[in-house]
Amino acid sequence: MTAKAEASPLGVGVDATTGRPLAIVCGGGDFPLALAEAAATAGRAPFLIGLVGSADERIEAYPHVWLRLGEVGKFFQALTERRIVEVAAVGSVKRPEFADLKIDFGALKRLPALAGLFGGGDNQLLAGIAKLLEKEGLALVGVHDVAPQLLAPEGVMSRRAPSAQALEDARLAAALIETLSPFDVGQAVVVAKGRVLAVEAVEGTDAMLARIAELRASGRLALKGRAGVLLKAPKRGQEMRLDMPAIGVETIAAAARGELEGVALAAGKVLTMGREACARAADQASLFLYGMAL
Amino acid sequence: MTAKAEASPLGVGVDATTGRPLAIVCGGGDFPLALAEAAATAGRAPFLIGLVGSADERIEAYPHVWLRLGEVGKFFQALTERRIVEVAAVGSVKRPEFADLKIDFGALKRLPALAGLFGGGDNQLLAGIAKLLEKEGLALVGVHDVAPQLLAPEGVMSRRAPSAQALEDARLAAALIETLSPFDVGQAVVVAKGRVLAVEAVEGTDAMLARIAELRASGRLALKGRAGVLLKAPKRGQEMRLDMPAIGVETIAAAARGELEGVALAAGKVLTMGREACARAADQASLFLYGMAL
Repeated sequence: MTAKAEASPLGVGVDATTGRPLAIVCGGGDFPLALAEAAATAGRAPFLIGLVGSADERIEAYPHVWLRLGEVGKFFQALTERRIVEVAAVGSVKRPEFADLKIDFGALKRLPALAGLFGGGDNQLLAGIAKLLEKEGLALVGVHDVAPQLLAPEGVMSRRAPSAQALEDARLAAALIETLSPFDVGQAVVVAKGRVLAVEAVEGTDAMLARIAELRASGRLALKGRAGVLLKAPKRGQEMRLDMPAIGVETIAAAARGELEGVALAAGKVLTMGREACARAADQASLFLYGMAL
Repeated sequence: MTAKAEASPLGVGVDATTGRPLAIVCGGGDFPLALAEAAATAGRAPFLIGLVGSADERIEAYPHVWLRLGEVGKFFQALTERRIVEVAAVGSVKRPEFADLKIDFGALKRLPALAGLFGGGDNQLLAGIAKLLEKEGLALVGVHDVAPQLLAPEGVMSRRAPSAQALEDARLAAALIETLSPFDVGQAVVVAKGRVLAVEAVEGTDAMLARIAELRASGRLALKGRAGVLLKAPKRGQEMRLDMPAIGVETIAAAARGELEGVALAAGKVLTMGREACARAADQASLFLYGMAL
């Protein structure tokens, strides 16, 4: 990627080791600010691109610009003006329909490429965006490059450790996510004693966990006591620079409401907003929180 | 299966072509009654075994007995007394936890076999029950044997036919269900334009469809107009004599609330409660209803 960026028409190499600017495309939630802070701490100059309707207003604490989805020309212009070639993207974004996009002239010029992005799963959409950015001379960087401390570490993070059964369930869940990868679906699965309770598709992890809680509360899912493991992991082939699985304390709380035994995360591959806060929340709910080598 | 039943200690062959009795283990919903009626029409004498808490009181219109889950001795006794060797099972049953079972003496005698049933997915549980019944000299018969008219036929049942895109989505959904089979999960999937929107696990099809409706209503899932196909099909290796996928008019209504394009069913492999009523409901909601050769 470095070689590609050096050859870019912007003429700015990305291998200068300090001080080079980093654009951060900001979706919703706290991750964009955490990443900006981590970048700044590492001596880089963050420039935040807030997606209207998704990003938090607090991004205005940094140099920033607000963009609507589809303001493609404005996006490239903002980076060119500032001679920024490295871009990260983080935070939740509601997947747009093609017709929802605010098409500016820069988007219009790229319309055939943009139109081709829609009509498949998320991987296809995001891989297409990544290709588009790189074709324009930008270098897409991942959170793992800029701020590995925001990722789930390997090993037990909570006081409680996973039982042998829970580890077996987490491995089954990992095999399921791997198996589903060609279908571009599933970043999270709940398994209890070898039985698959829920598979996440477009609803998101917290909604999936809320469903477990509801099914248990209504008696339609009869399980005794703490049961089940949430595994959160990327699909094979997932565009990790644009779309990493992510959890935060609200995920831990949702797992607790579902009366799960614990939460397993693919170590180094899941954004973890507030590692300590997540571990504390897990402890308070007597859940395990475990980073699994996958 | 016939040979096995003939060799049973009950000494009653199952190949007599008419009038032989059929026990029907009745879960919830209308299917048990529909099957009883179909059996009676075919000149067989139905004997209904109502599962307390699941079966409808209307089963009392036929010779019947009520049983709680776990009254295994009473179950075998009821059949032996009536010299019944053929058993079908239909209708929804809440999956019990082992501890929920009302263990009678007949169950106690079979405790090791029963305990081994729990601790996996539905296939494992049901295949174990089937094996248990056959070991006791009973012949388990499927709805497809007794009343094929209760199954989805092949072809378009509604006025509206599936679009080429919908057929492609249904095929993708079928491939996903096939792929998930080793995990003993997934009898239904929703796909829209190549994108997997929902995968059913323990929540059931109607709950899965309700989720699509909610996600669309809240704007969290942005789709224009009618979008998405529900495919309902058995997993590979599914114990079809004990657990067939099933739909009824309420499934069609749920698909309509989710603003899907239509519903595809594995032809000959999905119980369809009220074919005409389902087709009419699909027509009223402008959905297609399609029996797909799988």
